[in-house]
Amino acid sequence: MKTPVTELFGIEFPVIQGGMIWCAGWELASAVGNAGGLGLIGAGSMNPDLLREQIRKANNVANGKFGVNVPLLYTQVNDIMQVIIDERVSVVFTSAGNPKIWTSTLKEKGIKVAHVVSSQKFAVKCEEAGVDAIVAEGFEAGGHNGKEETTTLTLVPLVRKVTALPLIAAGGIATGRAMLAAMVLGADGVQMGTRFAASTESSAHINFKNEILRTGEGDTHLVMKQLAPVRLIKNEFYNQVLNAELSGKSKEELKEILGQGRARKGMFEGDLSAGELEIGQVSALIEDIIPVNEIMQNIIREFSLAKNELQKL
Amino acid sequence: MKTPVTELFGIEFPVIQGGMIWCAGWELASAVGNAGGLGLIGAGSMNPDLLREQIRKANNVANGKFGVNVPLLYTQVNDIMQVIIDERVSVVFTSAGNPKIWTSTLKEKGIKVAHVVSSQKFAVKCEEAGVDAIVAEGFEAGGHNGKEETTTLTLVPLVRKVTALPLIAAGGIATGRAMLAAMVLGADGVQMGTRFAASTESSAHINFKNEILRTGEGDTHLVMKQLAPVRLIKNEFYNQVLNAELSGKSKEELKEILGQGRARKGMFEGDLSAGELEIGQVSALIEDIIPVNEIMQNIIREFSLAKNELQKL
Repeated sequence: MKTPVTELFGIEFPVIQGGMIWCAGWELASAVGNAGGLGLIGAGSMNPDLLREQIRKANNVANGKFGVNVPLLYTQVNDIMQVIIDERVSVVFTSAGNPKIWTSTLKEKGIKVAHVVSSQKFAVKCEEAGVDAIVAEGFEAGGHNGKEETTTLTLVPLVRKVTALPLIAAGGIATGRAMLAAMVLGADGVQMGTRFAASTESSAHINFKNEILRTGEGDTHLVMKQLAPVRLIKNEFYNQVLNAELSGKSKEELKEILGQGRARKGMFEGDLSAGELEIGQVSALIEDIIPVNEIMQNIIREFSLAKNELQKL
Repeated sequence: MKTPVTELFGIEFPVIQGGMIWCAGWELASAVGNAGGLGLIGAGSMNPDLLREQIRKANNVANGKFGVNVPLLYTQVNDIMQVIIDERVSVVFTSAGNPKIWTSTLKEKGIKVAHVVSSQKFAVKCEEAGVDAIVAEGFEAGGHNGKEETTTLTLVPLVRKVTALPLIAAGGIATGRAMLAAMVLGADGVQMGTRFAASTESSAHINFKNEILRTGEGDTHLVMKQLAPVRLIKNEFYNQVLNAELSGKSKEELKEILGQGRARKGMFEGDLSAGELEIGQVSALIEDIIPVNEIMQNIIREFSLAKNELQKL
């Protein structure tokens, strides 16, 4: 396959594995890279030293065929970026922040930069900031999300209208059919989080992986709309946050309830009640925890099959 | 084109025009029928006498090539169904209620029945009720919607998994590309509301049609989640409802605020402040008020173009 996304990153298939906190360590990212896609280490749950170690381990088995995702609101972002530059990472995906802050610095070092947006308006800002690619992520995606609540089906054509840059669709995509659908809408590739969170190589706790399989329709919800919208599995922790919101608590009180380390507790330590469990709506479609290689083969096989079927129409 | 949806309804293209209140009268429904799709008269904003008149007018120009959409929670539903049977309407789409109540009665009269769902769970109920087709409508759709907030991209594959019935995707679809994407996901056809609400033949007030063109990303929102979720344009009326919800008002108090005739006031009388304006997220993509014939030609041309482009992948 050849699209502007495969060309930009020098990969075989335009499939990006989202750099999810607590799920996307070196093992997952390098496995995706070796299977022909682009794997991202999720720096959002790592301190700079841990990230350096993860990058070196990924390099040992995937020799540069991976990138790092950095949420720009992360407090240690300066040190994280220094590690990325020192370790000569070739691709950085930034999210949750202004693309103008880091893009030119990274590009001067020869690093390819993609930025994640949830609106057409921010896609325009990405283009102005000089990014190499844009990820358009819809309402159905897991984890942090936009206030506009625009779904992938609506967002991808809106973003395609305002930019000719390589465009990666995200949110609600876990299969080859959804990948083809996203490309029909104008995307040049896709980013999948939830599908890879439930892979063998994901660093998530097995309890969380099993919870992804159990999760059906309506079992995730976007909350913390006052603070920063995030899609969570509806568990005890979610109920606490929701009730706090509904009873009109202030941002400070909400932050207090969130406390420290709730995502680690849920996704990495496997506490399904007190932990924060970030996952996409598409978890309702996920039925197995399988190795990355198998996931990629399934995606590409289904993509080709769906493409051929269309010819009958 | 030949799909289970074109076969079922005897139409040229698998494009259904949603039976929207205050927008979908005989003029719109018959124009869609004559352009090769299936148009639906929206009975939800009509008393039985008006519906009878509308059906007769549609028959004069489209000779049976149309259907009627009936929200099952509508108070006059018994009389509405009697008119439909008396006037020998051949297709009924039911929504907002239990498909078991009316399906067998209608089918005994030789009427084809489709039911609108927002979840996999209700799709199973439709199959049990014996409907001829299922409409799977996602979170991004305008008007009344499901509590699960499942988007079209996630919902269509979930519903396809549990039924082999003709499947119509709705929500976020206004173009030939989105139609193709929906069919890649497993749909046999699509239902479009917003696109046809902004057509020349739509019975909506010109102020409302112009408001659809003005509406951009983030300008619609799902509210009244306690009562019955509905996607509205964010105007003065929307703010009243939202504030009432946020301040913890009871269902009875909410009903009081909604008052009578707010949708008529907004969509039919053109009061953009005090009226209720139901429209889909995809209104952000709509840029023109054009005749149905032109809309259909654009959709089919873009659908074919997108299908051919895929062969380059």
